Amino acid sequence: MFQRIAFLGLGSMGAPMAANLLKAGFPLTVYNRTAAKAEPLRALGATMAATVTEAGAGANVVFTMLTDDAALLELTLGPGGLLSALPTGAVHVSCSTVGPGTTRQLAAAHAAHGSALVAAPVFGKPDAAAAGRLWVGAAGPAEARQTVMPLLEALGQGVREFGDDPGHASVAKLCGNFLLGAVIESLAEALTLAEKAGLDRVGFYEMLTSTIFDTPVYKSYGRLIATQHYQPVGAPPAIIRKDMNLLVQEAYAQAVPMPLANLIRDRLTATVALGEPDVDWASFAKRVSEDAGDFQ
Amino acid sequence: MFQRIAFLGLGSMGAPMAANLLKAGFPLTVYNRTAAKAEPLRALGATMAATVTEAGAGANVVFTMLTDDAALLELTLGPGGLLSALPTGAVHVSCSTVGPGTTRQLAAAHAAHGSALVAAPVFGKPDAAAAGRLWVGAAGPAEARQTVMPLLEALGQGVREFGDDPGHASVAKLCGNFLLGAVIESLAEALTLAEKAGLDRVGFYEMLTSTIFDTPVYKSYGRLIATQHYQPVGAPPAIIRKDMNLLVQEAYAQAVPMPLANLIRDRLTATVALGEPDVDWASFAKRVSEDAGDFQ
Amino acid sequence: MFQRIAFLGLGSMGAPMAANLLKAGFPLTVYNRTAAKAEPLRALGATMAATVTEAGAGANVVFTMLTDDAALLELTLGPGGLLSALPTGAVHVSCSTVGPGTTRQLAAAHAAHGSALVAAPVFGKPDAAAAGRLWVGAAGPAEARQTVMPLLEALGQGVREFGDDPGHASVAKLCGNFLLGAVIESLAEALTLAEKAGLDRVGFYEMLTSTIFDTPVYKSYGRLIATQHYQPVGAPPAIIRKDMNLLVQEAYAQAVPMPLANLIRDRLTATVALGEPDVDWASFAKRVSEDAGDFQ
Amino acid sequence: MFQRIAFLGLGSMGAPMAANLLKAGFPLTVYNRTAAKAEPLRALGATMAATVTEAGAGANVVFTMLTDDAALLELTLGPGGLLSALPTGAVHVSCSTVGPGTTRQLAAAHAAHGSALVAAPVFGKPDAAAAGRLWVGAAGPAEARQTVMPLLEALGQGVREFGDDPGHASVAKLCGNFLLGAVIESLAEALTLAEKAGLDRVGFYEMLTSTIFDTPVYKSYGRLIATQHYQPVGAPPAIIRKDMNLLVQEAYAQAVPMPLANLIRDRLTATVALGEPDVDWASFAKRVSEDAGDFQ
Repeated sequence: MFQRIAFLGLGSMGAPMAANLLKAGFPLTVYNRTAAKAEPLRALGATMAATVTEAGAGANVVFTMLTDDAALLELTLGPGGLLSALPTGAVHVSCSTVGPGTTRQLAAAHAAHGSALVAAPVFGKPDAAAAGRLWVGAAGPAEARQTVMPLLEALGQGVREFGDDPGHASVAKLCGNFLLGAVIESLAEALTLAEKAGLDRVGFYEMLTSTIFDTPVYKSYGRLIATQHYQPVGAPPAIIRKDMNLLVQEAYAQAVPMPLANLIRDRLTATVALGEPDVDWASFAKRVSEDAGDFQ
Repeated sequence: MFQRIAFLGLGSMGAPMAANLLKAGFPLTVYNRTAAKAEPLRALGATMAATVTEAGAGANVVFTMLTDDAALLELTLGPGGLLSALPTGAVHVSCSTVGPGTTRQLAAAHAAHGSALVAAPVFGKPDAAAAGRLWVGAAGPAEARQTVMPLLEALGQGVREFGDDPGHASVAKLCGNFLLGAVIESLAEALTLAEKAGLDRVGFYEMLTSTIFDTPVYKSYGRLIATQHYQPVGAPPAIIRKDMNLLVQEAYAQAVPMPLANLIRDRLTATVALGEPDVDWASFAKRVSEDAGDFQ
Repeated sequence: MFQRIAFLGLGSMGAPMAANLLKAGFPLTVYNRTAAKAEPLRALGATMAATVTEAGAGANVVFTMLTDDAALLELTLGPGGLLSALPTGAVHVSCSTVGPGTTRQLAAAHAAHGSALVAAPVFGKPDAAAAGRLWVGAAGPAEARQTVMPLLEALGQGVREFGDDPGHASVAKLCGNFLLGAVIESLAEALTLAEKAGLDRVGFYEMLTSTIFDTPVYKSYGRLIATQHYQPVGAPPAIIRKDMNLLVQEAYAQAVPMPLANLIRDRLTATVALGEPDVDWASFAKRVSEDAGDFQ
Repeated sequence: MFQRIAFLGLGSMGAPMAANLLKAGFPLTVYNRTAAKAEPLRALGATMAATVTEAGAGANVVFTMLTDDAALLELTLGPGGLLSALPTGAVHVSCSTVGPGTTRQLAAAHAAHGSALVAAPVFGKPDAAAAGRLWVGAAGPAEARQTVMPLLEALGQGVREFGDDPGHASVAKLCGNFLLGAVIESLAEALTLAEKAGLDRVGFYEMLTSTIFDTPVYKSYGRLIATQHYQPVGAPPAIIRKDMNLLVQEAYAQAVPMPLANLIRDRLTATVALGEPDVDWASFAKRVSEDAGDFQ
């Protein structure tokens, strides 16, 4: 059924996703700009491609998991790009978190080429990707979605579909990251107040996450915030800041005031301006502590 | 062990809490300013008290669940109040959501009287109270806490302790309501953007709460917001607005800037100013829709 | 010295600016997409141009005053555009409020063409333009700035220079509009609170603007807000909303959190979403009243 | 006409105000908790009072200029306080910036005593007080206002009246400080963005304040912000933070959402939490720079 499947972009998310496809028995040709990152997949049976063109040539399905809109557009539409290498009828599964405009631009290019785009952003951190616990949101032409569904199901614990417009999956993913940002901001404010009011910071976190917020999102981000130790890095501040700016621009386009989204975007901007790149993006919680006089 | 237990304040939260104590086999004398609300408890075996003094006289333990700081202070410290009726060694379990200053003022009055205050605010809506699914946060003198622990355990699914300072339990409860407000604001912004961007509002809610936010808080508040139907009323906007003002004042006292708390307080202020009292406080989510041009 | 000067864009700002140049004795060729708007200038001695190309052909200096970035880029760089019509050595004086990126893109195109761009945004409303009370901020290559200085001085009551980078003038103009937005937001909040607290809204405005805020900006915007009558239209909400989005994007590019800019942008977004186009942009002050329950 | 006038509270504002009354030819008895601050007024002809009671005894008019609500209430209503020393028919002119509730509480106490309260907060910094350039806002019973009008006129360059309710003058004063805070926040955001975008920070300040913002408020606060040198201290952060909290509480009481007031209050809270007391309150502008990564 899938004669040839390719996966391009083997960073902290892409590598475990590709591994899961291999473990599920799908043949996979992989490519990464920095080739060394592809090596661990060789042991799982992946075929190495030296160039984007080589990866895309003859592929029925090609996954991409890249850093941002510019990288995705360049790799797909640029000179020596993926699109020109794809055969008619191929499906491009774009898993990157990008703006809906970028997604729709790609979809139109694919339609003109005779191929199809399915936007399939994933919800979860690298550790969830490795554990097969990602959630996948998929949107794009119905037939193409149906084609790649077995592959999407191999990526995680379930697929949710958003219809034919692939831009909708991008909006959903940006909203998902925003909701996580709201969890971080609210926990940061609550734990900081509680601590300054005399409660035990970690103890209060444990109380909250063993009662009304007894759920993985609050536990995982909350632990980073409660302990003020922002490791390991699920995603760095600059990457999610980029996402929040895409969200704010979509909110502008749709005429939706989003004061909390603005706040989160600005927290991340301050975090980037302050220059701490090697921390999880939840580290913007430190801005709350600092505003309360705590520079520990 | 408990010769006489009283429960004062039988509103939407107090009534089911008192009922749970009765169902657990504890004898209970009940009082409510509007006596009719006490009637259903008679069938469960409660003794009716006609006045606060009658309720408190000879009680080892007395619960209060009242609307706000002023009501609690008046009932406890005012003329003909609870404190003067209590015997030495009694324990007052204060379940109301009030400011830490009020709680500490009460604790000092009890200490002078020879009785003790345990602050035991509860986390959960009326339906959770009825189902015995409340969480209880308790703080106060260790001996008094130990005394009332079997009673607190009968109120819900678990007790979390915050040490000797009863004010800490009040801070924890205010933070809990704030965190719920953050859930509401973030869902309102996300669902409004998603809807205006073309996604199905309810469908996106279902996607979110069946994946990364698959937890009761997001499901219950999210359903109100997704459907824009703010019934039944867990708590009305004016009550939680009062709580958020207490929180903001505690943040002022502790010198903690809390921009998200300010936002939520203001959303509730607008909701109260607009005059819709008979809705759940999650209805402040409508302000997000209105700012986006939707006055449906 | 100026053999041929052209002015393109004769809206509510451009028309009085062009008139001032004519009144100062400068010969002027004028162009507007809707030609009827150019007619009143004919009486002042202007030469009519039927196309952009005709306006630009042989011009030493050409002014543009257009709605937004897209209009400016299209008119200048599009097919049949201004740039291709200009002779080598010409100076393009761009008075529109646009993003610094757009300004720099134009400057680069001019440099390649052998002409020069001077960004010269103006500070003031249409009535100030008509009265010759605009302030002009100019930036661009020093020689080009010197060339057009007598013309800029004829536009208003003074010119302020921002150096060689024309993008700096665009940033300054966006900041100027932001500062006006802050005046509007702060007056709206203050007057609304004062009114609800029992003071006379207009009387308090008059007190403020006859004492510590006795200055034209506070008087003119304040009058609209105090009387809640947002006429005449200096600039409509959608136009300044566009400016505030450019500002917010520049703040993102420079990594400067600007919470007040976000607030103003969102106030304008709500105003546009609510659909009241034919009012001055200061009408976003009504959002403050509405949040306080006043829908008069 | 004025047999005996007293002035209590000789801080950075009170001292020059008292001096202006003396210079205008009014006899004055002065009192300050720290007596040394009263000494310079002796040379201008002031009579020294050793206690509050001594200052108030037999006074027709008594001015107070104190730090906050608590100080004013204690000095006036506390044991050995001003009220008990005042003769029937006396007028208390309260110049402090306090909440409208405090002002109304004092007015009621005076009415019961047979004296009257005129709230007369002043608008301007210590240097304006010294130069006789304050503005005075007066409210209270009409007869009492009329009585003290010549004295109020001696304090500055003009008096504005707010009617019979002295609380209205307090609201007006709080709004005035809020509007100044908005000037500071907006200039801080604009100058920080401009600087990071490449403009000269001080030069842009000079451009703004020589054109559309050519007015003392923008010039004086703007100079502190442009140069990032927050001296001299007009008022320290903690004092205006207290005012902004009074404003926010009045906004709560009147049900007026004021997001900009919240922002300014939080900026001041962060400034106090960071522990820089000996600077002008405009130093909260540094928070904007810090959020943009600048800790110079």
